[in-house]
Formats: sequence, C-alpha cells, structure tokens
Amino acid sequence: MRPSGRAPDQLRKVSLEPGFSRHAEGSCLVKFGDTHVLCTASVDERVPPWMRNSGKGWVTAEYGMLPRSTHTRTDREAARGKQSGRTQEIQRLIGRALRAVVNMPAMGERQINIDCDVLQADGGTRTASITGSWVALHFAFERLIKEGKLAANPMTGQVAAVSCGLWEGTAEDKPFSEPQFMELLVLAKKGIVELTHLQRLAIGKA
Amino acid sequence: MRPSGRAPDQLRKVSLEPGFSRHAEGSCLVKFGDTHVLCTASVDERVPPWMRNSGKGWVTAEYGMLPRSTHTRTDREAARGKQSGRTQEIQRLIGRALRAVVNMPAMGERQINIDCDVLQADGGTRTASITGSWVALHFAFERLIKEGKLAANPMTGQVAAVSCGLWEGTAEDKPFSEPQFMELLVLAKKGIVELTHLQRLAIGKA
Amino acid sequence: MRPSGRAPDQLRKVSLEPGFSRHAEGSCLVKFGDTHVLCTASVDERVPPWMRNSGKGWVTAEYGMLPRSTHTRTDREAARGKQSGRTQEIQRLIGRALRAVVNMPAMGERQINIDCDVLQADGGTRTASITGSWVALHFAFERLIKEGKLAANPMTGQVAAVSCGLWEGTAEDKPFSEPQFMELLVLAKKGIVELTHLQRLAIGKA
Amino acid sequence: MRPSGRAPDQLRKVSLEPGFSRHAEGSCLVKFGDTHVLCTASVDERVPPWMRNSGKGWVTAEYGMLPRSTHTRTDREAARGKQSGRTQEIQRLIGRALRAVVNMPAMGERQINIDCDVLQADGGTRTASITGSWVALHFAFERLIKEGKLAANPMTGQVAAVSCGLWEGTAEDKPFSEPQFMELLVLAKKGIVELTHLQRLAIGKA
Amino acid sequence: MRPSGRAPDQLRKVSLEPGFSRHAEGSCLVKFGDTHVLCTASVDERVPPWMRNSGKGWVTAEYGMLPRSTHTRTDREAARGKQSGRTQEIQRLIGRALRAVVNMPAMGERQINIDCDVLQADGGTRTASITGSWVALHFAFERLIKEGKLAANPMTGQVAAVSCGLWEGTAEDKPFSEPQFMELLVLAKKGIVELTHLQRLAIGKA
Amino acid sequence: MRPSGRAPDQLRKVSLEPGFSRHAEGSCLVKFGDTHVLCTASVDERVPPWMRNSGKGWVTAEYGMLPRSTHTRTDREAARGKQSGRTQEIQRLIGRALRAVVNMPAMGERQINIDCDVLQADGGTRTASITGSWVALHFAFERLIKEGKLAANPMTGQVAAVSCGLWEGTAEDKPFSEPQFMELLVLAKKGIVELTHLQRLAIGKA
Repeated sequence: MRPSGRAPDQLRKVSLEPGFSRHAEGSCLVKFGDTHVLCTASVDERVPPWMRNSGKGWVTAEYGMLPRSTHTRTDREAARGKQSGRTQEIQRLIGRALRAVVNMPAMGERQINIDCDVLQADGGTRTASITGSWVALHFAFERLIKEGKLAANPMTGQVAAVSCGLWEGTAEDKPFSEPQFMELLVLAKKGIVELTHLQRLAIGKA
Repeated sequence: MRPSGRAPDQLRKVSLEPGFSRHAEGSCLVKFGDTHVLCTASVDERVPPWMRNSGKGWVTAEYGMLPRSTHTRTDREAARGKQSGRTQEIQRLIGRALRAVVNMPAMGERQINIDCDVLQADGGTRTASITGSWVALHFAFERLIKEGKLAANPMTGQVAAVSCGLWEGTAEDKPFSEPQFMELLVLAKKGIVELTHLQRLAIGKA
Repeated sequence: MRPSGRAPDQLRKVSLEPGFSRHAEGSCLVKFGDTHVLCTASVDERVPPWMRNSGKGWVTAEYGMLPRSTHTRTDREAARGKQSGRTQEIQRLIGRALRAVVNMPAMGERQINIDCDVLQADGGTRTASITGSWVALHFAFERLIKEGKLAANPMTGQVAAVSCGLWEGTAEDKPFSEPQFMELLVLAKKGIVELTHLQRLAIGKA
Repeated sequence: MRPSGRAPDQLRKVSLEPGFSRHAEGSCLVKFGDTHVLCTASVDERVPPWMRNSGKGWVTAEYGMLPRSTHTRTDREAARGKQSGRTQEIQRLIGRALRAVVNMPAMGERQINIDCDVLQADGGTRTASITGSWVALHFAFERLIKEGKLAANPMTGQVAAVSCGLWEGTAEDKPFSEPQFMELLVLAKKGIVELTHLQRLAIGKA
Repeated sequence: MRPSGRAPDQLRKVSLEPGFSRHAEGSCLVKFGDTHVLCTASVDERVPPWMRNSGKGWVTAEYGMLPRSTHTRTDREAARGKQSGRTQEIQRLIGRALRAVVNMPAMGERQINIDCDVLQADGGTRTASITGSWVALHFAFERLIKEGKLAANPMTGQVAAVSCGLWEGTAEDKPFSEPQFMELLVLAKKGIVELTHLQRLAIGKA
Repeated sequence: MRPSGRAPDQLRKVSLEPGFSRHAEGSCLVKFGDTHVLCTASVDERVPPWMRNSGKGWVTAEYGMLPRSTHTRTDREAARGKQSGRTQEIQRLIGRALRAVVNMPAMGERQINIDCDVLQADGGTRTASITGSWVALHFAFERLIKEGKLAANPMTGQVAAVSCGLWEGTAEDKPFSEPQFMELLVLAKKGIVELTHLQRLAIGKA
C-alpha cells in the first residue's frame, strides 16, 4: 500500500469550488488532495483576424505554477522570460481536451481563454487542471446564455482526467505491457466516473 | 463620499491569514477589500557567489498577477516572455521596503525570496503586497529560529503600506500642493497604525 | 479509400538510411513517404553538474523543421526567438520515448543529444522522428563500444511510433469511443511490427 | 563635510545645454557634476491605435546608460536582451514626472518620446534626467508652435528633481524618522528652486 | 600543398542539385566538398505593408546550421532563443549578394525568401550558400513565368562566391598586403568562372 | 559634384578627441562631419574560462546608436530586446578590424571591450567607429603600460576605415566592374593615409 494509505483504485480527496474568482466569467478552484489549482474561463469577444467570418469559436488554455506552489521554490517563468517545455506541453493538452467536447460553430465567433494556475502542488496538476477547467468553461457558457449571447450550451460532453501513476514518475524507464495497460485503463475509467459525477454536482446537474 | 461608502480616512476591510501555503517557510494571504494577494517567503541557503563570505544575507521580491485577477483578462507575462515595467517597479519597491527593516548581517548568509501573487485585484495591490509580505517574512525567520539556524529574529521593525488615492489613478495629471501633501501624510499615518496593529495580531504579538 | 490509395492498415513507404551524417556518432535519414527527417545522435562526455557522480546517463531530444519543409513557408524558430509549443511538446515526447528503452546507469555518465530535423514534411513527423532516432541512438552506442567506452549496448528494447489518423487532424472535435480505440490499437500494433522489423534491418540484426 | 567639499545644502555644479542634438525636435545635455545625460524629445505624429480620436496626446520616456558611463563597464542592455528593473523603474518615473506638467488634450493627438541616455555617471542620473528632459520637452513643443501645429505651449508648469542622499545609497537599511524627512524636504525645496531657475535660463525665460 | 591534396587554384568538388525540395518554388542542394547546404526559394505574394504600391519586389535570406552539421554539436539557435552574430552577418551577406542581380521593379510586388540550411559543414558554408541560392532563385522566377505571373526572368546576372582561405581562418591576426590581395583576386576570379559555369549547367543553359 | 560640395576624393571634416570619457581606460570621440561616435576601451582582467592559461588576450567590440542619433527616431534595441542584424554585423566588423593589428599573446590574458556608441548619425558610422576605436584602444594599452601591467604596446599597426560611397546606399542593385573597383581602391587608400595621419596626431606620435 502506498504511503498515503489509499487503495490502488482510490482517488485523493477531490473538491470542486465554482465561482472562486470574482471577475472571471467562469471559475473553479479544484483540489486533488494537496494539489490546488485555480481555473478561470475568460470570454474574449474580439476574435483574432484569422477567425473572423469563420463562423467558429475557439478554446485555448494557459498553465502556470506559483513559484512556491512547489516543495522548494521554482523560478518564476515570467522572470526567466520563457515558459518551459513542460508548461507548454501541459497547456496544449488542456486546450485539446476541452476543445474535444465543445461544438465550435455553436459557440459563436468568440474565444475563451482558460487559465490554470497552480496555487499548491502535490502531483497531478495537469489532471486537476483539466477536470476543473471543464467546470469553469461550463459556467462561462452559462453566463453567455444568461446574457442572451448564446441560445444553448455548446458543450457536447464532459471531460475529466486522472493519472494512474504511470504518466508522471517512474514510467519513463519502465514501459508497461499491454495487459498492464488494459488494467490501468479499467482503473482510470473508475476514477473518471467519480470525477464526472463530482463535475455534475458542481454545476448543479447531478 | 466615495462610491464604496467609506469615509476618507477609512481603510477597506483588511485581513491577514498566515500559513496559507503548505510548502513555504512563511506565507500570508492578505486581503484589502476585494484585492487578494498570496505572499510567500522562501528561504534559500545556497547564496549567490557574490554573497559568499560577505557575512550578510539578502531579501528580494517578485510580483505577479494571475491573468484573470483583473476585471478583463491581462496577458500572462510568462507567455509574453517578459515582465512589464510596472511589475518590475512594484517588485523592486517591495524588496526595498522589506530590506529597510531587516538586519542583514544578523540574518546570516542566506537569501529569502518573497513572492507576491495577486489572485484577485481591485486596486492597491502593491500596498497589500508589502503589508502581507512582512508577515510572511516574519514567519520565515521564526522557522529558522525553530530549526536552530538563527538565535533571534533579525527584523528591526515593521513595514506596512497604504495608498491615499494619489499613488494610483488621477495623480499623474494633477500634482498636489505641499499642504495637501501634509494632509495626506496624516491620513496615511492613521492607516499605517491600523495595519501594523493587524500585523502584530497576525503574528500573535498584539 | 484515402486519396493516397493506401489500405487502412497500410503504412506509407518507409526507409531508414543510417550513417547519413558524416560528423554525428549516430545518424539516420528516415522517410515515411514524403516526410523526411534527419536524426542524429551526439555524444557529450561533459555532463551537466547535476549529473556528476550520479552514476547515470541521460538522453534528450530536440526537434526542428526547416522553414520550407512545409507546403507553405513557416517562420524560422531561431528568427522568431523561441520554439513553439508544438515543437517543445514533440521533442519532449521523443526524449521520453527513447529514455524508456535505455538503461541509464549502463550508459555511463554521459549525455546523448538527439536532433530530429525535418527536411520535408507531409504528416507524421513525430512518429518518423521517434522511429529514426532509435536507429541513430543505436549507432551512437555502438560507436562508444568500438571506442572501448562501453562494454555493451545499454538499450533494453526497441521503440517505434505510428499514427493512426487520430493523433493529428480531425481528432480534436470528435473523440473516439473505447471500441474504436481498441480497433486502432490493433492497427497500430501491426504498423509497429513492420517498423521494428525495418529498424532491425537498418542495424543489421534482422 | 562630504568628500566633495560641498555644504549639505549645496548642489553639484549644474549645467543645461539645449540644442545639443542636431536631429531631435528638442534636446538638452544636462550635467550634474560628473553626471552627464543627453535628453532628447522626439515628436511622433503617428499615434498608436488606442490613442486615435481620443483628443489627447501622450509623453513617454526611455532611459539608458552607455556601457562605460559607469566606473567599471556595465553590460549593454541591448546585448543582454532586456532592460533591467532599475532601468524600467527610472524611465517610468521620468515619464510620470513630465506628464504631470503637460496638458494632454492641449498637446494634440501626437506622442513625444523622451530619451535620456547617460554618457557619464557619477550618481543622480535619474534626477538629472528629469531636470534635463523638461528642457528638451519644452523645445519640442516650441518647434510644434513654430511649425504651426500648436497654438501655445501645453506645459502647465515646471518639473525638476533633486536627491537628498537618501534615495540612493544607505537609505535601504536605515529608514529615516518623520522629523528627518521634514528637514530633507526643506533641503530639497531649496535645490528645486535653483534647478527651476536654471531651467528658465535655459529656455530663455529667466 | 594542403592536407586535402588540392592545388592552390583548385576548387573542392562542387555539385548543384536543383529541385531537391518538393514544396519550394525553387530549390538546390549545393555541395562544396563535404559542405552540403540546402537552399530554397519561397515566393510570398503577401508583401509587407511598407512594400505595397511601391512597384518593387524584395529578396531576403535566412541561414541556419543543423546542430550536428558541425564536427562537434552546436547549440540549436531556436533553443537558445536567438540567432548568433555570425548567422546574422551571413544571411545579410546572402541577401545583398542576390539582390545585386535582380531587377526589383521587374519582379513585381512580391517577396522571395531564401533559406540556406547547412546539413553538413566543412568550411565555406557562406560561399556555397550564395552559389546554390542563385540557382534556387532562378527556378522560383521560372515558376512564376510558368504560372503567368511574370513575363521574363528579372535576374540581371549571375552571382557566385568563393573563398580564398583568407575570409575564414588565419586572416584575423595577419592582414595581407596589396600585392597578395591582387594575387588572391586572380585566384578568386578563376574559381568564379568555374562556379558560374556549373550554375548555367544546373539551370540548363550552359 | 555632390550636394555637400566636396570633391570625390575629399573626406568630410574629421576630428579625433581622445580622453572624452572620464572612466574608461581609453576613449575617443570621433567626428566624421555630422557623424559623432563615442568610442571607449574597457580593460577586463577577469578573462572568460576558455581563455585562461591560453597565454593570449582578446579584443571584442559592441556597437549601438542612441535612439535619436538618427534623423527620425529609431527604436531602442534594449527595449526591443535584441540587437538588429545590422548592429551585429557592424560590431563584428569592428572587432575583426582591431584584432588584425593586435599581438594577442603580447597583450596578456585580459580582454578589452570596445564600445562604439553613435551620438549623432549622418552616414559612415562604421568607418568612424573603426577609426576612433583604434585611438581608444591605443590609450587603453598605454594605461596598462603606465600601471606596469604591460612592458610595451602590443599593437602591430594602425587600422582606419573609409567608405567610398559603394558600401552603403546604391551599391546593392548595381554591382561595380573591376576597373571601377580599382579606381575606388585608389580613392580609399588616399583617405586612409589622411585618417592614419590624424590618428597619429591624436596619440601624439605624428
């Protein structure tokens, strides 16, 4: 059994707190155990030139860690003058995950910027970010409906993410076999079922 | 009377919540009304080469705003690849303010990095940052005492900051007279008295 | 049937040409149809400070596209002053894939830099890069053996990559079901069997 | 008495030489003792998009030091690829100081760029820059009047700056008391009276 | 006699292979001995704003080296975040050399981007780049003629380059005399005659 | 005859003013007509690691223009965050020109940094920079002799530069013939004779 005392198929304590941010159209503070991520969704009606008259919208994401969200302090990316490869990889993943469940023509010619900022890190920040961002994005669309700018929510499904101990950590120097992969897939699906249930609770539709 | 309904000499609701961050040696979530800043103090025992054998320590500060801490989204400085002039000016101010009340030789050859990250902004982020950072810094020194690395807290006084409506906003195109300046000084001192009292409460010494 | 006239389970014409580069310790020009990638493996005996006395080596990768490798010209990343998120994501993927099949302590305290430069692009550059880099890496280790610096090749297995039309392209706005995923897995395994056979031919061990 | 032999309320030898630069609409070489700063004011009629139809102008400033203006050579900021925090803080200060004495609507929809370049440094470069820039700015406006583009000079007052030995140097680790502050204020006012007199001489209005 | 066994007035083995690149409007793989450079010419019909209605075109060049084109690996400029002074100097030289033989009004309002990417380096990369780029540029213009966008090829002459052992290497600390210079000029002209003949062969006009 | 009224073989009015800068080991303000360049030579005894125990010194150069040295204001390179290709090309040229007349082993293991900063530009800044830098460099070596760090001046000759109207301006679209080149060479030599005479006057050795 792992140091944390959790069973292999047991998620850390998860909480989703929508409306954490006063200014953002949608927001959610997500906690996966000691990992805390503030997810906000910001609507931008001024679309970039290449999007004009396309009849489609866009969802994009950025990710960052507060310098002392980590056990020892990490250099501030703004001070170093560039985002690390890790940061870029994660924010691209978040954007792709969310775009997979949004009907782009239905959201209209506008862009939604997702920001995932890690206030405290204890592993699994990318999965927490995806899970919390979905909630923030949902509320941003609801706001657009309330303002009469959208007739219906353009989200076509839910997206949540869970790691099974192989995405981060020791996986690199020890690939896993196909049966192991299938076993992990079962574990992951169990976790996803729990997370999507919590997401529905968070948006008041459980 | 101002839109907020506050009297001219009345501070916004201020709160100081120490220990907000799990990892940092010292931390404080400071709220000046709807302005929320997370201040952390991180001890770095590996001093830069130019500090070795100097017999002195150093305190430095960095400042950042979450992209959607503001009313409309601000570009992420890490994505733009550099810190704005405003950011640099503010973080230099915070560092100078704190160094003014620390006995550098007494803190030993180590560096303390202060990080002030604005989670939500509604004016006065630099004054909130200074006020909260002092509390975070205090606790970082206390931690060093507890670990036997320092015999006494090297802070020589308190530092807090308040703005009187002239630092930010309309001041630029309307300089003020000397009598006005003296009047503002009185107001500011009143505010500082309140803030330093709250700081002492926060560190359990009021 | 696709415009190319290939069957769903048919790879594009693949070729692996080792020793393409005169200077590199290991190299391979890989062609997946009209996608041509030059992969080199460069041995660096001067390990970074954090690796010294660790008893381990490291393999890392960088990726780039010539500006006119693409159908219309793409801006040169060196001129723009930074690598795109896509580039960073791909080079991290290549590095991870290769490290998964190398015994780090067995390769000694040295670093091998993999460079994957796309001379001509027609889709699938990341899978071609992984497949060709494995060959280049193999020959770099063989060179170290020949020079008496290693007793045996520290590679623990083969790694190759194939895309099934879902990684790039339309996948974003249309997630696939679990049965579809399983079907794709079968296709992918078939492709991998072919590629690993070609890799063994290229290193003279088929 | 200080090493320089000056009395506590005595300024260093100050000179203001307008028209130093052949190309600039306004210019002034200012010397505060061995500190020499070349200040130029450049009129830009092409205002940025956000200023169009605002009915207002803008004044902004940039500051730089020649690498060997200092006692030992300082790295060139253009070569390092970014301006230091100190540079940014100073140029923001210069811009704010000048904007405080310009009637923005009266100057018309144009921007004036102030450049303060330190040819030789011996302390007090920021105060010299502010004092000299005011003269350069004055002449830029006079040029616009001569060209028939402005009916009157839109400057609403003078601005000069003096340091009292507390802004730079030992102030950091030794805050000063309120009585000390008041005493310094008296000294500063005396210096400002002298500097503004020299400014009026420089523009031919003393 | 030099290690290579060549006579003082003998060029290395030169080859020019047009059409190497599938996508580019014009391309040429040039080999000067073991120095291999891929030159492409890309037509851009969207001219920058300052060129519109000028009635003229423009030719510009960029240069890069693959990291392991050199004997030991060179850092990737895209990863370092900027082009070296050497790179910038060379690409400016290539651009100037080509513009000297193009009639800018005759080429119409379009830009041609030359990319010279060194696949393998063994000295003389800049001279190889100029020589090969001329061929690539020729074919880009021919393509425009074939597409009916140009009536005739706007090139006014040929340009090729050769180094005489003084441009790179020991020249720095040993300037040469005027008679030596004249002698080298004779050698260089001989080499240029050979190269321009090979260029004419490459474009089918020898 | 040219607009300036000068004969074809007549230099602009040239002046060389050594000792312009108070701090630099060597300095010279050079004026070629309305082109004014401040050249400084700074001795750095802390050589970079790769130079230690090489038994040789190094001379390098940097070049910059004040933003309003030009007829209309040019963006500040430090603010843009990088040096232009033109700047890099010029500073490399200056460094090479000076190194050609310095005996590197004789100057000892130290580096001299040349800074050429254009205060006012009216064409020919690179030739003025080379000519003035030689004087600055001379005095830096003399200083080292006076301080007992060198026994003799390690300069092996003089270097000056003149442009003949073909390096900058219309040369690009109109190459010149060999006879024209020879004619220009004669003109250039005449100018160089005058400049080197002025250099010897400036160092008190005419």
